[in-house]
Amino acid sequence: MPDPTEVAGTPGLSYRDAGVDREVAQRAKRSIAELVRSTEIPGVISEPGSFGGIFRVPAGMSAPALVASADGVGTKLKVAMMAGRHDTVGRDLVNHCVDDILVEGARPLFFLDYIGMGRLEAGVTEQIVAGVAAGCRENGCALLGGETAEMPDFYAPGEYDLAGFIVGIVEEGNRPGKHRVREGDVLVGLASNGFHTNGYSLVRRLLFDRLGLGVHDRFPEHDASIADVLLRVHRSYLKPVLPLIEDGKVHALAHITGGGLPENLARVIPDGLEARVDRSSWTVPTEFQVIMRHGRVDEEEMFRTFNMGVGMVLIVPAGEADAVVARLNDEGESAWIAGAVARGERKVALV
Amino acid sequence: MPDPTEVAGTPGLSYRDAGVDREVAQRAKRSIAELVRSTEIPGVISEPGSFGGIFRVPAGMSAPALVASADGVGTKLKVAMMAGRHDTVGRDLVNHCVDDILVEGARPLFFLDYIGMGRLEAGVTEQIVAGVAAGCRENGCALLGGETAEMPDFYAPGEYDLAGFIVGIVEEGNRPGKHRVREGDVLVGLASNGFHTNGYSLVRRLLFDRLGLGVHDRFPEHDASIADVLLRVHRSYLKPVLPLIEDGKVHALAHITGGGLPENLARVIPDGLEARVDRSSWTVPTEFQVIMRHGRVDEEEMFRTFNMGVGMVLIVPAGEADAVVARLNDEGESAWIAGAVARGERKVALV
Repeated sequence: MPDPTEVAGTPGLSYRDAGVDREVAQRAKRSIAELVRSTEIPGVISEPGSFGGIFRVPAGMSAPALVASADGVGTKLKVAMMAGRHDTVGRDLVNHCVDDILVEGARPLFFLDYIGMGRLEAGVTEQIVAGVAAGCRENGCALLGGETAEMPDFYAPGEYDLAGFIVGIVEEGNRPGKHRVREGDVLVGLASNGFHTNGYSLVRRLLFDRLGLGVHDRFPEHDASIADVLLRVHRSYLKPVLPLIEDGKVHALAHITGGGLPENLARVIPDGLEARVDRSSWTVPTEFQVIMRHGRVDEEEMFRTFNMGVGMVLIVPAGEADAVVARLNDEGESAWIAGAVARGERKVALV
Repeated sequence: MPDPTEVAGTPGLSYRDAGVDREVAQRAKRSIAELVRSTEIPGVISEPGSFGGIFRVPAGMSAPALVASADGVGTKLKVAMMAGRHDTVGRDLVNHCVDDILVEGARPLFFLDYIGMGRLEAGVTEQIVAGVAAGCRENGCALLGGETAEMPDFYAPGEYDLAGFIVGIVEEGNRPGKHRVREGDVLVGLASNGFHTNGYSLVRRLLFDRLGLGVHDRFPEHDASIADVLLRVHRSYLKPVLPLIEDGKVHALAHITGGGLPENLARVIPDGLEARVDRSSWTVPTEFQVIMRHGRVDEEEMFRTFNMGVGMVLIVPAGEADAVVARLNDEGESAWIAGAVARGERKVALV
């Protein structure tokens, strides 16, 4: 293992008196090392304390290609801070990254995190990294390293930013993508479980600023608290979807994040074709309806800001669509036929 | 290329009126795409707009291992902001990451960045990414992706955080490291060119808070401005050092960052041995002496906080030391014999 707890913060002139921080850092370091070890998988060859994390390239592939992505959690972090719950955002981050490389057909190998914070607070770093490690274990990838930077002039007390970086692997020839999409292909929608990691600035402004609610109040028209609804963890679609890709059943995929269905689906639609999304094929979950109604947000805006209940879209050959939907539902997903690819110039049309 | 400009910030309720931001983001996106293209090297196979950056595993290696590292720039960023100079910190970041994986013997393949900021400001994101891209070109690695997150509630106007992730590759059997270090090995020091990316909180507190200087004032006892001295770019040792590693001349390396010589050199010293660093073998550069004197910082503290003029240490077999020093000096480096490895329990001793 590399040292995932390098602390970039620099001692002040009175550093010698500030023994506490060093102790907090040392304690964090030890528990993070344990968390890192809990994610070990075959392939990890670095030892604790090394400068870089080292991972053996899997053998036996004919044309292995690495797929990498960097991401943050965005302002969902603010909700975690308000609720004092720091062990879920790491899972959000890992799952978001896993889904981003899954659309390229990649199986995750390893993950690294970056935490920027004002002052290391006893327990908080560990909770954040515990979430990252849990996300890694759930997706079978190693937490190979990371950095925690103490930057008191950048972050308010109790605040932090969290970014992550994933590397996965795919056989180059098996990559799904835009180049495989054909007229007549079918769109298969996969349900999200909430806001995932997008639209939080708007949601927060509405709930906290306009409606004056607190994070422990009930989410409007729901039985659950705002914290519970807003901190539901971004889903990873790795387990149900990767086997379908490996079986050659999927032409392309889109992970529905910022920009929503219109912008993300457009990324895998070739020129001359358009994805016609049938809006009557699913019911937009109530949490989105609440935001739209109470915030008087225009529907198009909603679709460009939120996933609206669709976490991922698979584009599959027409002849495979029913079988793909059945397999996904058998795996416990909520999947449905959400439209089709046709000739057209609009890239994505919500019909 | 993947889309290196995904903006995670979420529109507010009045998003429709905020057309400017979208325009700024679009402009940033276009120039960043150009910058990304400027770093392309063989191996890059992803196209603009894809969800993950894709890089072909180099062929012809017998046991390829990936080496990854995550890092930030720390509070050197604050100096860049004070000076309004945003095109050097990206080079700092890339070089820091390159040096971290170089100590594992790795040649860099690709890099991804994460920028968290309050509001996208016209030109600033582009300047930051221009620095990252320049750093990538200088080290022959591809800028494969990244994320720019707009988070107005986290960062003060004009402020940002910057993190980076690198992946390189090494033949597993050729890795330098602790396991190769033997009694009698010689320490070769490589000069830094200043503070690199460590100790900035202390430096800033002294110069700006205690001495009341501004970033455009002269650095005490120097002809250059504080901005010029403090923003000198963290050096990459890739070009002079990688050939030595590949020729089998190097047992281990230490990149001297936070924790200084004592902590970083200790990471590659096996139990039962100690690195005896001969402090009379080089002159600590004047910028460090100024900080020590004006800040009345204790010398041990200085060595734990700053690189003190030593950017990297190579541990080489005694019989190779003179030739290694000569080769490095021929390449324009400033290299010298800085001590030796002996039996002992102190890991690192400054003698």
